[in-house]
Amino acid sequence: MLKLNSHPSGRHFLQIPGPTNVPDRILRAMDYPTIDHRGPEFQQLGRKILGQIGQIFQTVQPVVIYPASGTGAWEAALVNTLSPGDTVLMYETGHFASLWNKMAEKLGLKPEFIGDDWRSGVDADRVHARLLDDAGHQIKAVCVVHNETSTGVTSDIAAVRRAIDRAGHPALLLVDTISSLGSIDYRHDEWGVDVTVSGSQKGLMLPPGLSFNAVSQKAIAASRTARLPRAFWGWEEIIEANKNGFWPYTPATNLLYGLSEACDMLLEEGLQNVFARHKRHAEATRECVRAWGLEILCQNPDEYSDALTAVVMPRGADGERCNADALRKVILANFNMSLGQGLSKLSGWVFRIGHLGDFNDLTLMGTLAGVEMGMVLAGVPHLAGGVAAAMRSLQESALANKLD
Amino acid sequence: MLKLNSHPSGRHFLQIPGPTNVPDRILRAMDYPTIDHRGPEFQQLGRKILGQIGQIFQTVQPVVIYPASGTGAWEAALVNTLSPGDTVLMYETGHFASLWNKMAEKLGLKPEFIGDDWRSGVDADRVHARLLDDAGHQIKAVCVVHNETSTGVTSDIAAVRRAIDRAGHPALLLVDTISSLGSIDYRHDEWGVDVTVSGSQKGLMLPPGLSFNAVSQKAIAASRTARLPRAFWGWEEIIEANKNGFWPYTPATNLLYGLSEACDMLLEEGLQNVFARHKRHAEATRECVRAWGLEILCQNPDEYSDALTAVVMPRGADGERCNADALRKVILANFNMSLGQGLSKLSGWVFRIGHLGDFNDLTLMGTLAGVEMGMVLAGVPHLAGGVAAAMRSLQESALANKLD
Amino acid sequence: MLKLNSHPSGRHFLQIPGPTNVPDRILRAMDYPTIDHRGPEFQQLGRKILGQIGQIFQTVQPVVIYPASGTGAWEAALVNTLSPGDTVLMYETGHFASLWNKMAEKLGLKPEFIGDDWRSGVDADRVHARLLDDAGHQIKAVCVVHNETSTGVTSDIAAVRRAIDRAGHPALLLVDTISSLGSIDYRHDEWGVDVTVSGSQKGLMLPPGLSFNAVSQKAIAASRTARLPRAFWGWEEIIEANKNGFWPYTPATNLLYGLSEACDMLLEEGLQNVFARHKRHAEATRECVRAWGLEILCQNPDEYSDALTAVVMPRGADGERCNADALRKVILANFNMSLGQGLSKLSGWVFRIGHLGDFNDLTLMGTLAGVEMGMVLAGVPHLAGGVAAAMRSLQESALANKLD
Amino acid sequence: MLKLNSHPSGRHFLQIPGPTNVPDRILRAMDYPTIDHRGPEFQQLGRKILGQIGQIFQTVQPVVIYPASGTGAWEAALVNTLSPGDTVLMYETGHFASLWNKMAEKLGLKPEFIGDDWRSGVDADRVHARLLDDAGHQIKAVCVVHNETSTGVTSDIAAVRRAIDRAGHPALLLVDTISSLGSIDYRHDEWGVDVTVSGSQKGLMLPPGLSFNAVSQKAIAASRTARLPRAFWGWEEIIEANKNGFWPYTPATNLLYGLSEACDMLLEEGLQNVFARHKRHAEATRECVRAWGLEILCQNPDEYSDALTAVVMPRGADGERCNADALRKVILANFNMSLGQGLSKLSGWVFRIGHLGDFNDLTLMGTLAGVEMGMVLAGVPHLAGGVAAAMRSLQESALANKLD
Repeated sequence: MLKLNSHPSGRHFLQIPGPTNVPDRILRAMDYPTIDHRGPEFQQLGRKILGQIGQIFQTVQPVVIYPASGTGAWEAALVNTLSPGDTVLMYETGHFASLWNKMAEKLGLKPEFIGDDWRSGVDADRVHARLLDDAGHQIKAVCVVHNETSTGVTSDIAAVRRAIDRAGHPALLLVDTISSLGSIDYRHDEWGVDVTVSGSQKGLMLPPGLSFNAVSQKAIAASRTARLPRAFWGWEEIIEANKNGFWPYTPATNLLYGLSEACDMLLEEGLQNVFARHKRHAEATRECVRAWGLEILCQNPDEYSDALTAVVMPRGADGERCNADALRKVILANFNMSLGQGLSKLSGWVFRIGHLGDFNDLTLMGTLAGVEMGMVLAGVPHLAGGVAAAMRSLQESALANKLD
Repeated sequence: MLKLNSHPSGRHFLQIPGPTNVPDRILRAMDYPTIDHRGPEFQQLGRKILGQIGQIFQTVQPVVIYPASGTGAWEAALVNTLSPGDTVLMYETGHFASLWNKMAEKLGLKPEFIGDDWRSGVDADRVHARLLDDAGHQIKAVCVVHNETSTGVTSDIAAVRRAIDRAGHPALLLVDTISSLGSIDYRHDEWGVDVTVSGSQKGLMLPPGLSFNAVSQKAIAASRTARLPRAFWGWEEIIEANKNGFWPYTPATNLLYGLSEACDMLLEEGLQNVFARHKRHAEATRECVRAWGLEILCQNPDEYSDALTAVVMPRGADGERCNADALRKVILANFNMSLGQGLSKLSGWVFRIGHLGDFNDLTLMGTLAGVEMGMVLAGVPHLAGGVAAAMRSLQESALANKLD
Repeated sequence: MLKLNSHPSGRHFLQIPGPTNVPDRILRAMDYPTIDHRGPEFQQLGRKILGQIGQIFQTVQPVVIYPASGTGAWEAALVNTLSPGDTVLMYETGHFASLWNKMAEKLGLKPEFIGDDWRSGVDADRVHARLLDDAGHQIKAVCVVHNETSTGVTSDIAAVRRAIDRAGHPALLLVDTISSLGSIDYRHDEWGVDVTVSGSQKGLMLPPGLSFNAVSQKAIAASRTARLPRAFWGWEEIIEANKNGFWPYTPATNLLYGLSEACDMLLEEGLQNVFARHKRHAEATRECVRAWGLEILCQNPDEYSDALTAVVMPRGADGERCNADALRKVILANFNMSLGQGLSKLSGWVFRIGHLGDFNDLTLMGTLAGVEMGMVLAGVPHLAGGVAAAMRSLQESALANKLD
Repeated sequence: MLKLNSHPSGRHFLQIPGPTNVPDRILRAMDYPTIDHRGPEFQQLGRKILGQIGQIFQTVQPVVIYPASGTGAWEAALVNTLSPGDTVLMYETGHFASLWNKMAEKLGLKPEFIGDDWRSGVDADRVHARLLDDAGHQIKAVCVVHNETSTGVTSDIAAVRRAIDRAGHPALLLVDTISSLGSIDYRHDEWGVDVTVSGSQKGLMLPPGLSFNAVSQKAIAASRTARLPRAFWGWEEIIEANKNGFWPYTPATNLLYGLSEACDMLLEEGLQNVFARHKRHAEATRECVRAWGLEILCQNPDEYSDALTAVVMPRGADGERCNADALRKVILANFNMSLGQGLSKLSGWVFRIGHLGDFNDLTLMGTLAGVEMGMVLAGVPHLAGGVAAAMRSLQESALANKLD
């Protein structure tokens, strides 16, 4: 048997921005024997989950659950609502927005990509301007990423909705929340989103293998005429079968056991408490980075992500930028912690600290101490005192909400 | 927490023809914390699995592993190799062949469906005849199901290969082995299959959530010009990333832990021993059905499935056929066992006994006793003695291979 | 890592009369991280268990839980209530009664052992007669085994109580229920037992490692003057600490997680239902043995054990008794089932079938089929038809209580 | 089902000095089905464990494993080697030495207790002096605690051995290593210890429920004439049965699965590496405490424990000593961490930080940050900078042993 946590001693710190640390309650729930996916016991499970999952998306509309990882749900959102050659407006917030753009091309769509610097969120005014220009309504959908996992930048989805509405444009609004759902406040219904894409392995605290499309009535209407070929991803049969608590083809039963437990955990804690917890840990992390004298990749404080922080590597004594991957390697080897790498054009010059999912104050302090000690070992110039600054930040809010 | 095995007492008998009973070794392997899918520990896991999985398909060619359930792998086989409007020749062995046919239509292909009676396997001569007719080579692929899970009928894949070759036809050969892989001898390379489709939840003894495409060089060549839109299912990036032990997007890490264990278990036992074990249990099951005086759905003994047996319900005293679902319900309620239902046109008049995966003689005897006692409770006419016949069958082969 | 279920395929049948098959709910409950045994979360657990465990013993008096296996609880019962040189009256029902007798000697007591043939239970009249003789009340305790695990014979504890009372004798009544608790009706309070000894690994469906003393007020009073040295086993400190939900020294926390789950399971099913289920499986087993033409070791039908059946080996063609251990070895090697051996003077001429704990009809049928097929392989003379007889027995009662 | 880790979010920090955090490898190993404790598969397990456990005690002599928690092994050491009324010399290093002393009294021994201040280890000269006085060799055993869990003070066992030898005294040497085994270098054979007592729930990283007596030939010889009553704890039958890999009565099978895994883990890491790791974490902890300006309870640096650190509470502004339990309660409620309380006469004025078992640098940093933040919340006067000092300590040694 593979010894999967064969590190020298103690628990691995999985501080990439997802997959996140899976809590014991979820691992144990997933460890039950698989049951008949067409039997009455499964039906009870299906109904329970389908009754809870909408609360996580803050929607009363259908949420389609796929036995597939998150990338699949991107594809599902596109193939259910669009036709070959359709123009879609996408916004370059970073690596994942770029991958979604590339996927749209592969699927035979014509994505228009509003370029940006990977350090800020969606500029709703630019979206608005482009849609105003589109008098003929060639643009069928606007696709944006709520929390860009490659940069630690969030976008104001309500503002994008208003931009579309102000332009009087009928385009659908498709939003990726893979790394924000269950971590950062997200409101499918209130914000008028048509398709919300998400995955299991971040704020939902599950292993990867499930993904989601929350869909509006407008999106369902669009799916009736959309002509991109689709079968596995088709919403219609799934929504139909879900009415009885079942799925049209074999669901990922054991991951659904975990999802059931995850929904219980998030709803027991209370979604607003979950979001506040993430914000508190994110703020402490940012205080830490500032105290190190390092730069946070995200440039606009209004757009800071509460799920992860991307940190820009400083320059060394030789004037060259220190390498983020060399730092990450030192930290993994010496302190048993995984951090996120810089992706594509950020490769080597940022690293990412995940502070989402099943996480708490002391795990955050261990995480930040690991980065600070790692920088010492790797010879990365920084000011001491990041960890101390994070402690002050946590203490202050803990004092304000002290529990007895 | 859901009490998923809340039956009155004792272990549930999951004797549907998949998902199958997941052995403890696999459940425990899957219960480890998720790791960084871009780190060195994952790479070691990825390389191990990719080095073993081909042995299960009896191939030295690439096996693409998807973080998606089996239906997805059907779609993958089609979208990677075909173009819009392509004709594909499919064969109606039962419900699953029909679903695959329906999927091909949805994806914009032109499937031709050779109709049959759902009680026999692929007639290679009919395939041969149709291909001979196709002088213009409009048919781009022949799609067949190796073990039709809805009927308990296997097809002779080597014969289909020969039929294609004898016709001198360039069509690709695509084969569904979802319910045969790891249970019934299947040889991707020797039989010249171009794409073998499979899933995790049957002979591989895993929960659902992984699926597979084993691909030939001819299939890869076809994928270079195939024009059906694809992204998530695209082989190219996956095969490329696999060279280093990674996947291009987030894999279903915990299911891969289970797959690693499953490969170890099957290869430790020895594939030929695994197949012999399935055959032995299947034969005992058929002896049992015959002794009950009931009819096996599969009409040709050469095509009996070693993974499951579909049993035709007898007529009652009133001359009406007894209902299979009423029987299944009685068995579930009284004997804590799930059996497979009759699907679509077989609904109500057959039930299916799964005898594949992690299974042994005594579990088989419990299974058959449950059916026999269930028929008594449900008032289904049958001869006593099925269980006794199965015991004689098992004893005979056990005597011939007695272990000390 | 040890591959503990490395049998060729399928689940092992653990049909010794304990340890019994541990259900998944209990294994998963035990798989949670250990917590602080002096913290508030543990206290909640402790109070829950202490509130439930008495219901299993059918008592409202204290139940002392030891972090030690069952043999320890025998010792505890003696050292808490007796003084060096005290006479105790014990009854030779079989191997375990003999071991308890031997233990009493080792501890410096003077056990008087009423001899018997290992095929019947306690003869209350002989106990009565001996106590009548003991005008000076030298006998301080009467020690009997409720369900003798080595023979499959139960004793009438209420009759023993009446025998003591009729003799007007003040002796304490100490009863071993290691293999009956949670399987066979047992009433600590109603039957006036002073100390009930039990263990975790039989009817409670836990792994071994916990044991119990349910104690009467009379036993507690006796413990105040008893002079056998004791520390670890001392009731007083444990009962005192239990008032707050704690233990005086480190408890076996993870086994207590399992005990919590076990109590939930037994009380959800309902104790009387649990007992009826065991009786039903025991009766089917006895029908099976009779149909084989073999002898049940227990001679008096009133004393048949519902937890296990000890079967006497027949003589072979050569007139020699067939060897039980040779049979057990063949069954383990060929059918992946463990059966209980004959102990001490029963060695080789009986084997024991455990049918207690987390068990159901189909597992029983697998078990009996394994024995029947094993006898064929091992050349043990028997009549065919045992399995069929057991099925008839189960069917009959299932018909009478048919579930829809 | 109890939700045992129902804390708001993230993993609980169990930083009491035992039970320690149980690693996933061990929890999963323990989660396998219980097997027949008299079968061949168990025998293989028994032999493996018995072959490894001596290496952990650094002995080639027998190690008796009890299915009972640690307190039981104290009793076992006494009852196997001593007779009623025997004088034993014990040394008051703290709460646990006092409990052992109290147990000796309860068991009918005459313990002489060399009093001390609970802030230092065994003074071998005092032992030597007392033994010299004992010309008649009334003292049959010297009993000391290697690592006093209540104070964080270790004693020099080799020095005690020399003290006995210099006095030419035949007394046995009995040593408690419950909280040192597998954490602090301990050499049963080299140091001439006669009985080493230990438990599973500290350095062995298991849940509580197993305990140990490593025994010398001299101890075994003593056991032949020792007259304290014993049965459950008797070495002889266990050592005899162990020769074949079995135990005389039902062992705690699932805890043995965990022990097998624990031995693998400690031996894979290498015992000397395990000890060095504990020392490094202990030193960082002590640097932290010093930087806070607080007092370490242990007064002699040569006797610092590498398994835990007991910290003396400072006085508040009012001149009163701050209460340790109020601090612990604040830390549990606000930071999800359990710390050890002060026991008996230390109650309220010390708290104990466990840094043993399955532990690493980042978990230590989380632990110390939790204490530092907790002191702020609880208003306990201290200097800031403890966490920073610990980081400097860890960094320094990490730099000296940097891994790439």
